Amino acid sequence: MSRDAGSRHLRIPGPTPVPERIRRAFLRPLVDHRGPAGRALTRRVLAGLQRLLGTRHPVVLYPASGTGGWQAALVNTLAPGDRILVPETGHFALAWAALARECHLEPVILEGDWRTPADPERIARALAADREGRIRAVCLLHNETSTGVTSDVRAVRAALDRVGHPALLMVDVISSLAIAPYAHDEWGVDVTVGAVQKGLMLPPGLAFLAVGPRARAARRRHARLPRGYFDWERMIEANAEGLFPYTPATAMLFALEEALRLLEEEGLERVFARHARLAAATRAAVAAWGLEVQCRDPRAHSAALTAVRLPPGHDAEAVRAHLRARHDIALGGGLGRLAGRVLRIGHLGDLDGVTLLGLLAGIETGLGACGVPLRGSGLPAAMAVLAAEETDAETSPS
Amino acid sequence: MSRDAGSRHLRIPGPTPVPERIRRAFLRPLVDHRGPAGRALTRRVLAGLQRLLGTRHPVVLYPASGTGGWQAALVNTLAPGDRILVPETGHFALAWAALARECHLEPVILEGDWRTPADPERIARALAADREGRIRAVCLLHNETSTGVTSDVRAVRAALDRVGHPALLMVDVISSLAIAPYAHDEWGVDVTVGAVQKGLMLPPGLAFLAVGPRARAARRRHARLPRGYFDWERMIEANAEGLFPYTPATAMLFALEEALRLLEEEGLERVFARHARLAAATRAAVAAWGLEVQCRDPRAHSAALTAVRLPPGHDAEAVRAHLRARHDIALGGGLGRLAGRVLRIGHLGDLDGVTLLGLLAGIETGLGACGVPLRGSGLPAAMAVLAAEETDAETSPS
Repeated sequence: MSRDAGSRHLRIPGPTPVPERIRRAFLRPLVDHRGPAGRALTRRVLAGLQRLLGTRHPVVLYPASGTGGWQAALVNTLAPGDRILVPETGHFALAWAALARECHLEPVILEGDWRTPADPERIARALAADREGRIRAVCLLHNETSTGVTSDVRAVRAALDRVGHPALLMVDVISSLAIAPYAHDEWGVDVTVGAVQKGLMLPPGLAFLAVGPRARAARRRHARLPRGYFDWERMIEANAEGLFPYTPATAMLFALEEALRLLEEEGLERVFARHARLAAATRAAVAAWGLEVQCRDPRAHSAALTAVRLPPGHDAEAVRAHLRARHDIALGGGLGRLAGRVLRIGHLGDLDGVTLLGLLAGIETGLGACGVPLRGSGLPAAMAVLAAEETDAETSPS
Repeated sequence: MSRDAGSRHLRIPGPTPVPERIRRAFLRPLVDHRGPAGRALTRRVLAGLQRLLGTRHPVVLYPASGTGGWQAALVNTLAPGDRILVPETGHFALAWAALARECHLEPVILEGDWRTPADPERIARALAADREGRIRAVCLLHNETSTGVTSDVRAVRAALDRVGHPALLMVDVISSLAIAPYAHDEWGVDVTVGAVQKGLMLPPGLAFLAVGPRARAARRRHARLPRGYFDWERMIEANAEGLFPYTPATAMLFALEEALRLLEEEGLERVFARHARLAAATRAAVAAWGLEVQCRDPRAHSAALTAVRLPPGHDAEAVRAHLRARHDIALGGGLGRLAGRVLRIGHLGDLDGVTLLGLLAGIETGLGACGVPLRGSGLPAAMAVLAAEETDAETSPS
């Protein structure tokens, strides 16, 4: 089977390479989604997602991209003209805000520098100033995929509680779930939005939500936007019978079940430790290169990706094109205001230390060939980080 | 790999069995959807869908089920309170109407008997009576999957033209495309809604629309519903660069490209002839059994499925359960008001004559075992239909 350039070393920050066992799930013959096997599959997959999200509340699953999941969170809970508070962590925070505007909501953006996490104090102040209670939700990205900056969900929850504001807390975990610890119930999140093409290692095409009781109450008492396809109550009602209100993506459910099995076999704690280790090794290499990481807050470094800033005068897009053509490496580029300025190295999903070291070596070679000045090789630093930790051979998923 | 009961002979009216070549497309390594290989893939797939739908106008593709496609058609063209005219061909026509109501539209349902196609004369009268022009769209199912009744799209177009009503013509081809002839441009359709899990033989998870110029004009001049995820202009704009406004379902695009290749290799005329032949053989068997077909109009028989009415006192669900348990056959059951009253035999997608004959023999055995009185065997009649035609061996897709 022929390959496409950039697919051998696909290290964009998702979609991630799909492990062999998950790809093989697509070879299974389809089942009747309304029959007993289909219903049992639905129940197993939803239970697995509940465990992964840390919730006893309903999880709903849509054939959709993550953007569809964002929309589901908004239209099930809000009414036209409602304000939502969006800390501007980067491109995807602004994209969620733009989607909200398109859905007839009024996003209030807390401007940010795209290099630091959402600031709980500023969120608290903005909510405290909202005396009329027009802000109905805070929309937070747990991990901002455009910058590699992770925000502290518990600190944001505490900020809401401190000012006693009733806004719903909605958290996007699209690029953090199965990569870093998360706990929907324990952390007091009202709606969590996830997707399958990052830590879950599936091809894209499914979005899912964990729906807490306050969010369901908002659906009953307040929501007035058209929901249709994204109505979660119809979904929850059908799911109770193992069914869906419309045709589910059955083959994707096979694949999702296999992904959940892979993660549970490795053990979530080990999955998180592996990601933290690979991220630390990547940052060590970047530091040794003498380049700067986009994230400025050491406590906020992403376990999923590292965005590397290029020195002024160097075009990240030229480096990406070179890496693709010469080394069959696909990295993420800069989005929005970071266009041309950063390389985003995805170190999430099905990845081990040896593969990462090869990738870093390839990137280092490519940076040199493109004339980006490097202080030194990043390899020894990355190897030292990995050598100091548990071997990856024990913990790789595939 | 273990199988689930009902998956060996999955003959619900879709999702259909996925041919080996399409399943293997999921084994391909993912590509960077924003890179050159991803962009080229997008362009090839959209061009293939244009050929299949018979349109030179844009085709848009959403990670979604067919219900999402229905919603996209409505929210891109209409405003709150708009009326849509829905000929009640069966369960799915009512489901589209219910979705429209949920989207703050007012469906006007032309009541039907679920046994005959949409009546162009009644549509013309309803439109002629709409002097205020409140009806903005006619929503028609080309093939009603709950009954196996096909409506005449050209006759409905002619009815609109006769009364000179400006309503948009929206046609659902979810269970007719790549099964029976269709021509979006030539037939004067404004929006066509399709999905991949029937004639295109993919696992479910993608919906697509052909969007004519009058529909795009309605989006600019009239539409006022929140679109968000389903906004087709953002999609068309991104597609022009080979991109999507959000992460596309890349592996599904690989599979869709392979499906389009399979259909073009067989040749669409032969695909249609094969479906017509298999449908005729099925109806011949049903007639020989002495059972009644749900569709009462001989010109409206579906090429995709045959709904078989059971005699009073016989429960179709008991027959389905028996067929699943004893013969590993999954048929469709009755939906809505037909619950328990019909068996729906899917003869669409990757199917040839020999496989159909085995299926009919299994159903006949099961009907007998369940005590349904049969006048005689259906096999000789079905075999005679197939023998009179071109052999299937030449035309089977896989």
